[in-house]
Amino acid sequence: MVITESRTVKILDTTLRDGEQTPGVSLTPEQKLQIARQLDLLGVDIIEAGTAIISEGEQRAIKSIARAGLRAEISSFARLLRGDIDAAIDCDVDTVNLVAPVSDDHIKKKLKIDRETLRRMTMDAAEYVKEHGLKVEISAEDASRADMAFLKSLFTELSDAGVVDRLCFCDTVGVLYPERTKEIFSALSDLSTPISAHCHNDFGLATANSIAAVLAGAQVVHVTVNGMGERAGNASLEEVVTALDLLYGVKSGIVKEKLYETSRLVRNVTKMPVAPNKPLMGDNAFTHESGMHVHGTLADTSLYEPMDPGLIGRKRRFAFGKHTGRASVKMALEEMGITADDSGMEKILSRVKELGDKGKLVTDSDFQAIVDDILHIERKERIKLLDLSVVSGKNIYPTASIRLEIDGEDKVEAGVGVGPVDAALNALRKAMSGSEMNDLRLEEYHVDAITGGTDALVNVVVKMSRGDRTITASGVSEDIVLASMHAMIKGINRLYS
Amino acid sequence: MVITESRTVKILDTTLRDGEQTPGVSLTPEQKLQIARQLDLLGVDIIEAGTAIISEGEQRAIKSIARAGLRAEISSFARLLRGDIDAAIDCDVDTVNLVAPVSDDHIKKKLKIDRETLRRMTMDAAEYVKEHGLKVEISAEDASRADMAFLKSLFTELSDAGVVDRLCFCDTVGVLYPERTKEIFSALSDLSTPISAHCHNDFGLATANSIAAVLAGAQVVHVTVNGMGERAGNASLEEVVTALDLLYGVKSGIVKEKLYETSRLVRNVTKMPVAPNKPLMGDNAFTHESGMHVHGTLADTSLYEPMDPGLIGRKRRFAFGKHTGRASVKMALEEMGITADDSGMEKILSRVKELGDKGKLVTDSDFQAIVDDILHIERKERIKLLDLSVVSGKNIYPTASIRLEIDGEDKVEAGVGVGPVDAALNALRKAMSGSEMNDLRLEEYHVDAITGGTDALVNVVVKMSRGDRTITASGVSEDIVLASMHAMIKGINRLYS
Repeated sequence: MVITESRTVKILDTTLRDGEQTPGVSLTPEQKLQIARQLDLLGVDIIEAGTAIISEGEQRAIKSIARAGLRAEISSFARLLRGDIDAAIDCDVDTVNLVAPVSDDHIKKKLKIDRETLRRMTMDAAEYVKEHGLKVEISAEDASRADMAFLKSLFTELSDAGVVDRLCFCDTVGVLYPERTKEIFSALSDLSTPISAHCHNDFGLATANSIAAVLAGAQVVHVTVNGMGERAGNASLEEVVTALDLLYGVKSGIVKEKLYETSRLVRNVTKMPVAPNKPLMGDNAFTHESGMHVHGTLADTSLYEPMDPGLIGRKRRFAFGKHTGRASVKMALEEMGITADDSGMEKILSRVKELGDKGKLVTDSDFQAIVDDILHIERKERIKLLDLSVVSGKNIYPTASIRLEIDGEDKVEAGVGVGPVDAALNALRKAMSGSEMNDLRLEEYHVDAITGGTDALVNVVVKMSRGDRTITASGVSEDIVLASMHAMIKGINRLYS
Repeated sequence: MVITESRTVKILDTTLRDGEQTPGVSLTPEQKLQIARQLDLLGVDIIEAGTAIISEGEQRAIKSIARAGLRAEISSFARLLRGDIDAAIDCDVDTVNLVAPVSDDHIKKKLKIDRETLRRMTMDAAEYVKEHGLKVEISAEDASRADMAFLKSLFTELSDAGVVDRLCFCDTVGVLYPERTKEIFSALSDLSTPISAHCHNDFGLATANSIAAVLAGAQVVHVTVNGMGERAGNASLEEVVTALDLLYGVKSGIVKEKLYETSRLVRNVTKMPVAPNKPLMGDNAFTHESGMHVHGTLADTSLYEPMDPGLIGRKRRFAFGKHTGRASVKMALEEMGITADDSGMEKILSRVKELGDKGKLVTDSDFQAIVDDILHIERKERIKLLDLSVVSGKNIYPTASIRLEIDGEDKVEAGVGVGPVDAALNALRKAMSGSEMNDLRLEEYHVDAITGGTDALVNVVVKMSRGDRTITASGVSEDIVLASMHAMIKGINRLYS
């Protein structure tokens, strides 16, 4: 299927418009600018920065993006209304993306007009934008449920009138499938205006449909980072771009090595979670746990990987669990500078699997505890939590006192913080500062989302480092403060053993 | 594209085998049985229950599933090794799914054998299973990177020998695309043994590829609930089944109305998060925030929905945020039994958008606070938090004392709990129990995952109800105890106003 003629596609990113319509997501003007700058570095051709009419903050955001001196073309979404268009023009954008509902249901039930009125309104709006010297994209909303003959005649008329720069076929409710997508875009490919494709992922086909559209002639695809957007979201930028490039040989201006950092930035700023199994960008996308896969991957990295993770700015990762095999254990022991005979290896493996059977994630410190136990490696627990007392509330400054045994000696300290966990950590830090264990860094503190009741088990995972050694450790308790302390003390004992 | 001849497809669910290989996921035997029972109710044809050889717990799990009297065929995964096969047979399964690596890289670099040895091992293993009276499926691993002529001859030989019941083409690393998938499955369609398709989602194409395989002749598809599985996961059961049915007219035995409850069960048991934008099953899949969409959806539910959410056991939901429009506000006010004139409506809308501009999620209680303020509705805050003091730690029983103002009167109470939040909540409950506000139920307590440091902002959302009224409220603080109390007290004041 690799396309022989050298084909390219342009990328319109609508993370800041359709993506921001994700329920629960709202960005400040500063955040929108931050994402726009990253999209520009990533090599996006067109940034749809928002919908100017929706609020004063949105206008500030779009204006600041339009004036940021970015390489990308900047566009604002607008309905066919004068007010919407004027608001967009006021923001100094390059392009107005005019949404024209084209299915009869949308025309009649939502706009309560007829096809001819819609046709006239669309033409008028496009002309009005052109008079102001801006580019025009027409987004034909709900096009996948529209009458194709009407759509084609509307597009032809707009194209022939020279008032449009792009014509977008929107699969607004995500009901297209690849075969139908190819038919449609082939039928539109004789227009002299470039065609764009805007696909939604309601049936999980947005990537396939976007690709089908490009293969059949679409010159621009609308996408969002991490597939954000209303309902099941829009086509994912990273999937469409990477699949087109690596599977079909269709190139874009995207710097693929920057895909992961862009995904992380958008995830952090929007707080919209990315599933661990999200293609290419999820935490697990290049992680191997099963023994068979790890064994294979160590033999040759290509065996269980679709591509080199570095191509999109990522690294491969191995995990322990009930599917762990000999190869993973061997590699981990080598990294720890420990040798074990076959029987030792088997015992370690079976204990890892046993923990996995209980439904537990096996962290580095769990693994090390197993190895120590099986191989009778004596490691003094250099630090023990004897007592902890934390007070917090309203009209109380969160305060903790801690009693530790450090290298056999009792040590008592107190600390304050912004909350009970923070106070406890600060007390712990102070208690340790006098010891030689003072080069510890807490790299990451993570608490899994808590659902259920206030008595649910809380799972805390910490990543700590010392010099160039990094370790993960976890703690579980119904008490978030204790779970956090358990995780940290386990980690410290592993790091300083 | 709707297929005229009535086509059907069989569903092999491998949530309990490939799905469980998701890094970090481990299920107990009891949990595996629980999921298997649900899959059976859902109407799955074949349940791949696990890989018997991997652990003793896994064998118990598979055995209990095989003996549970389910309607579905039960299968265990096994390598071509006697030990693997014997372990599977011991578990009383109906079928052994034999994995035979078929790409030259896998044959030579992983197994370190040649094609002929692989061919003989596969035949021997299949015969061995057949001798024990079980069904055989051959999973041709990494088939998408194998030599097609070799694969075809291997499949033909196995099929002609009558030692196999299904032959599976595995896109192990997820590098297929729909056009190539169709070519491959067409080329295999003349075999007398049913062909199955096993697709991975590394490029986001698993759903499209599974469908392409079925259209080109595959009679069985391998899928997992929520698209669980190594790396980017397997093809999602819910996407493949629903798209095949609604877009292509290909039916399966799946009871679609049970899809959502199955997805929820698997999400809860495996703790594997489902992204809000996961097609069909994500929290946002049928949620509407944008003003335009809500307006449209209220006019006619089909305008911004790909399908009736009830078809897969779901309900539609509306959300507030910066994209909220008049229609949502009007609907919410009607539900609250409040009327507002145009100017009041506009003011409410602009305040909702303002909060959205600040990057905030707008909960029910936020919305009500805005409405009250704009429309000058006086609502006494019936309950105020005056003081709170919570003690917890190691060797301390988590204890809280609380001073509230309830209907103008001071009330002091204390409570204990399993952790500081729980203790505070119990103190609050006791303080309220004497008042007439004692019919309150806490339906859901949720804390967003915390990442960053121990001083990160914690976002708590509670859902509370009283009679048949339900309300959501949120609290944010660096202190999880205070954030929880703020959320609850806001919610209580709204419920009892």
